[in-house]
Amino acid sequence: MSVFRSGAGFFVANMTSIGLVTPQQMHFAEPLPLRSGAVLADYMLAYETYGTLNADASNAVLVCHALNASHHVAGTWADGSRGWWDNLVGPGKPLDTNRFFVIGVNNPGSCFGSTGPMQPNPATGRPYGASFPVVTVEDWVDAQARLVQRLGITQLAAVVGGSLGGMQALAWTLRHPQAVRHCVAVATAPNLSAQNIAFNEVARRAIVTDPDFHGGDFYAHGVLPRRGLTVARMIGHITYLSDDAMGAKFGRQLQNLESAADGAKSGLAFSTQAVEFQIESYLRHQGDKFSQYFDANTYLLITRALDYFDPALDHGGDLARAFAGACDNRFLVVSFTTDWRFAPARSREIVKALVDNAIDVSYAEIDAPQGHDAFLLEDPRYHAVMRAYFDRVAATST
Amino acid sequence: MSVFRSGAGFFVANMTSIGLVTPQQMHFAEPLPLRSGAVLADYMLAYETYGTLNADASNAVLVCHALNASHHVAGTWADGSRGWWDNLVGPGKPLDTNRFFVIGVNNPGSCFGSTGPMQPNPATGRPYGASFPVVTVEDWVDAQARLVQRLGITQLAAVVGGSLGGMQALAWTLRHPQAVRHCVAVATAPNLSAQNIAFNEVARRAIVTDPDFHGGDFYAHGVLPRRGLTVARMIGHITYLSDDAMGAKFGRQLQNLESAADGAKSGLAFSTQAVEFQIESYLRHQGDKFSQYFDANTYLLITRALDYFDPALDHGGDLARAFAGACDNRFLVVSFTTDWRFAPARSREIVKALVDNAIDVSYAEIDAPQGHDAFLLEDPRYHAVMRAYFDRVAATST
Repeated sequence: MSVFRSGAGFFVANMTSIGLVTPQQMHFAEPLPLRSGAVLADYMLAYETYGTLNADASNAVLVCHALNASHHVAGTWADGSRGWWDNLVGPGKPLDTNRFFVIGVNNPGSCFGSTGPMQPNPATGRPYGASFPVVTVEDWVDAQARLVQRLGITQLAAVVGGSLGGMQALAWTLRHPQAVRHCVAVATAPNLSAQNIAFNEVARRAIVTDPDFHGGDFYAHGVLPRRGLTVARMIGHITYLSDDAMGAKFGRQLQNLESAADGAKSGLAFSTQAVEFQIESYLRHQGDKFSQYFDANTYLLITRALDYFDPALDHGGDLARAFAGACDNRFLVVSFTTDWRFAPARSREIVKALVDNAIDVSYAEIDAPQGHDAFLLEDPRYHAVMRAYFDRVAATST
Repeated sequence: MSVFRSGAGFFVANMTSIGLVTPQQMHFAEPLPLRSGAVLADYMLAYETYGTLNADASNAVLVCHALNASHHVAGTWADGSRGWWDNLVGPGKPLDTNRFFVIGVNNPGSCFGSTGPMQPNPATGRPYGASFPVVTVEDWVDAQARLVQRLGITQLAAVVGGSLGGMQALAWTLRHPQAVRHCVAVATAPNLSAQNIAFNEVARRAIVTDPDFHGGDFYAHGVLPRRGLTVARMIGHITYLSDDAMGAKFGRQLQNLESAADGAKSGLAFSTQAVEFQIESYLRHQGDKFSQYFDANTYLLITRALDYFDPALDHGGDLARAFAGACDNRFLVVSFTTDWRFAPARSREIVKALVDNAIDVSYAEIDAPQGHDAFLLEDPRYHAVMRAYFDRVAATST
């Protein structure tokens, strides 16, 4: 990798990944009070860091994860797993680890190393299961704030996240506005719509009505509610892609292409259970894969955290009032035209609430075909916006 | 009821329903060849009729049903059940039974009286279950054509249907163009998009992976795959309503309103499994109700019939060529602005294919907030369009 400096900052030719990274864990003995009134005692957080914290600890950026992601944001694990936002975070990338110290953290209640339903409840010695306390976006942000503090950082240069991660980024400015300068909220919403909640609820019903769920204590029964998780993931996946993207990628293409080539009709199996169209095969595969690694209780908890997020609720439904305390923060809000899960109109609600407070906000609506998933992809215009904004963050941080 | 005649036709003051109606059945001994190559032998069709067939049998209108409906289109059964399109069909209503002889028929493979998976296979004496042959829109139309003929009707004045019923109405003009004059296709599409198929596939997976499905032979086990059917129906229901309609009806309203009135937070149960939002309660109720009366094998068959419908397929994907034989038919195509299941753009594809053939077509795009379900509701503009069109049909039929 050759790095050279120009007047505007660092530029990297032959951008590479961060390379091998190793997850870390931090133990917290002090109980975490939760929004529900319950308390999470004696918990661990799994996290990763990339880049180097500068002398005055002013270049730290926290990345918040969405539903099924983790602290593994960038780089590669020994098993070859690439970070979920590796196209955005790394040396010379839009969130440039040559100048920023980037932190990824797995939220409590998740299933990738932080304390969650799969792990033993210290009070009983058995897995928490369905007894794991309900956690909210605000609880996660409080847990993240403790980690950040323990890493020696008084104020983050920025907090960034997409989708549910974007909600966490917003919540940082509501709960800890002095502990963060910039908030980058991508493909997110100020709360879930009835339709959003509806999709979550169907997914949850698929899981809890799976006989292998055993009320959440499936670990003790040596089974996994894979049927329910598979259906849940298939539903989710439909909402992550735009109708057009699904049409462009799969259309009505038949799975059995060789037979289909023989003639229009001979490609059809005329079966209700066989895979007939490619989209069916794709969804089944995605669901199947997911059900092998994701914890069912975590799925319930995380979809519930999405449902509960609603910062305007404590302010009579007035989102602008919710952001009144964030006047010293600066924001970038990004949405994608074909995202029907969190449509641009939802991002504009956030922007309006910020503008109503005369808060510094940049807004980009990216014309991208992929739907909600676009926030994870490497769209050049999207990444150019992110790069430009992080250049601005860097100008005051490094 | 007082009926009076004006220059323009019949007008009815104090419109009433048809009143009590009794379903009928007709037996067909001649085997029905199916598109799959299989044959349906010795079958029954359940049907209802409303109004009186005129002397030259020129005033008959066939109503085709969608996924979960039946031959019970209008009037009331002895148990109080009202027909699913009773707001449209009846004396003085847009499809006026004072002048039309209206026929509702339950399609083979359904579960309301026509031969379907719940009924004994004559070859084995046991319920067909999953062995019921896969039926298509075209097969249904062929079965309907035989019924119509047995009722002494050579040519229908019109065939009308919404959603999947609209596909059947279109298929009549493709398979039996001489046997029908007018086609009224409401809230439908020339085929399913990848996203439409995806939703169907998730619903099917929920059903077939329910342990109580027993490969479709649950009848013999004395159980019903109610968990799967419930999830399937919940998914379907989300796609029937617009995001806005769901928002207007349920929004983020909490189920526990009394507690909610005590303060923003106290209304929340902080539970992953309890009903927290009203939309959850609504969906669970809809799913639960459906799972008690609808046959799981029928659900698989009917969603598959939706998937397979694609009249352009045999014409190199050219929908206009598919309609080339329907030049003597006249069409009304109706769509609803907020229908995201079968969006107006899909109806416009149909209109374009008809216009390309210089076929007589009227098209109405109704600005209605309810989404796909609007076709079942009594929107005044929608019903005015239907009434005006059936006036035109009547002018040449009665």
